Amino acid sequence: MTHSSNSRVYWEDTDAGGIVYYANYLKFAERARTELLRDHGIEQKTIREESGIAFVVTRCEIDYHHSAQLDDLLEIRTALHDLRKVRMTMHQEIWRNETKIASLVVALACIDKNGKPTAIPPELILAMSQQTSSCGGHNNDE
Amino acid sequence: MTHSSNSRVYWEDTDAGGIVYYANYLKFAERARTELLRDHGIEQKTIREESGIAFVVTRCEIDYHHSAQLDDLLEIRTALHDLRKVRMTMHQEIWRNETKIASLVVALACIDKNGKPTAIPPELILAMSQQTSSCGGHNNDE
Amino acid sequence: MTHSSNSRVYWEDTDAGGIVYYANYLKFAERARTELLRDHGIEQKTIREESGIAFVVTRCEIDYHHSAQLDDLLEIRTALHDLRKVRMTMHQEIWRNETKIASLVVALACIDKNGKPTAIPPELILAMSQQTSSCGGHNNDE
Amino acid sequence: MTHSSNSRVYWEDTDAGGIVYYANYLKFAERARTELLRDHGIEQKTIREESGIAFVVTRCEIDYHHSAQLDDLLEIRTALHDLRKVRMTMHQEIWRNETKIASLVVALACIDKNGKPTAIPPELILAMSQQTSSCGGHNNDE
Repeated sequence: MTHSSNSRVYWEDTDAGGIVYYANYLKFAERARTELLRDHGIEQKTIREESGIAFVVTRCEIDYHHSAQLDDLLEIRTALHDLRKVRMTMHQEIWRNETKIASLVVALACIDKNGKPTAIPPELILAMSQQTSSCGGHNNDE
Repeated sequence: MTHSSNSRVYWEDTDAGGIVYYANYLKFAERARTELLRDHGIEQKTIREESGIAFVVTRCEIDYHHSAQLDDLLEIRTALHDLRKVRMTMHQEIWRNETKIASLVVALACIDKNGKPTAIPPELILAMSQQTSSCGGHNNDE
Repeated sequence: MTHSSNSRVYWEDTDAGGIVYYANYLKFAERARTELLRDHGIEQKTIREESGIAFVVTRCEIDYHHSAQLDDLLEIRTALHDLRKVRMTMHQEIWRNETKIASLVVALACIDKNGKPTAIPPELILAMSQQTSSCGGHNNDE
Repeated sequence: MTHSSNSRVYWEDTDAGGIVYYANYLKFAERARTELLRDHGIEQKTIREESGIAFVVTRCEIDYHHSAQLDDLLEIRTALHDLRKVRMTMHQEIWRNETKIASLVVALACIDKNGKPTAIPPELILAMSQQTSSCGGHNNDE
């Protein structure tokens, strides 16, 4: 099952080349991961205040297929690819209508308030595994 | 008549102080001005390609009343305060529920492809004046 | 006495209009204020960890005179205009060679770890007043 | 031969987690690639105006080893790993003193004013190959 959310391209996202600056696609991707959690009732500010845990990106791969431009409405598709005790991997794609703009593989780790890796809380595991459970044998967005 | 649009606060908007970085409120304000134009059928990329004109900010005043934080849903209220031949001034406020986060006064000038001040196109004047015409004697968001 | 520091314009700072995005001048200004403190031996991370205090911008005015572009080397001139018990005001100008790009007036307040206004620590008052003491009757950058 | 340049971490680069936001390391990396070109006498604005060509990132991999924080002075090491007719690959590392913060592999393509892949201009090939020629058998930063 793939989660979908949208982001509009504003002036802030573009650069003098007339296209979205390459680092800013990572912002769109992060917003989408946050919305995936929010759609499962999870707010990162709350879990951080209550349990001191947070997610940090440990690795990110991004392929840029086409350029997005000012005023484009982008759809970000996010699928949980792998869920372990302290880590998870997400596959994300950024689309403008029928054009695939970018593809990402993002690995995240759960850390405690001291920055040490820690187990992902059970309620998150439960929420996130519901995200994958509908995916059958192909729990990514390919 | 005040235009209203929303922006969510994501990690990208915050800083190590735990609040939204002071320059990023100007991004929320710009998104709202762009949405105001879009709601009147005006896309900036299109008018730039067709007529070579663009709007540049010539002055911005912002008062920071309260801090916004991660996960906050902000409402940006935008009102056209003054509309001249080549310039206009907008009043904007950023709200989180009943809390006023920031107030802005933004002056914009219309420029041609050489960066010279030029008359705002009639269709924009028409669209924008509809924005103000409903405001009567109090065409701002105070 | 006016403090001077430099910032280069990179792709990240520009937008599809081919010029620096209007909010990003506030980043250049903040870097310069941070360097002014650093030149007086003050690191904000350290004072925050040791005393829990931080500075927040309460008001910012910026006039945009000319546009900066990719690869421009900008000089940011910063002068302490007013220093009170819990507040201070800085005047800043952004220059590219002999061209004044932007002028700012930035008001800051000192806050404690709960976000409440608090007295600026004596060592900062001392460091900052050295910044102004050389200015005589013209403690701004005009 | 590895090129070296520095970037300071400012408030704008951090997020509410108290560390540098994950997308912003790509800004540090892009600044360093731009400085590498500048150190070879190449300004991207100039080559774009004169020949209409530009470089776009086609793929980026980044591993996050440690977190950078406010006030950190980062060193970005950049090495040309592979140079082809229209493409090149750079290896980059971000260091804070003896701590490796992040490692990147960045693939770039040369495009013309229509966004089509085009041959990297001879003077750039020459300048860049000087960058690699000193590297002997180990022309990367591993």
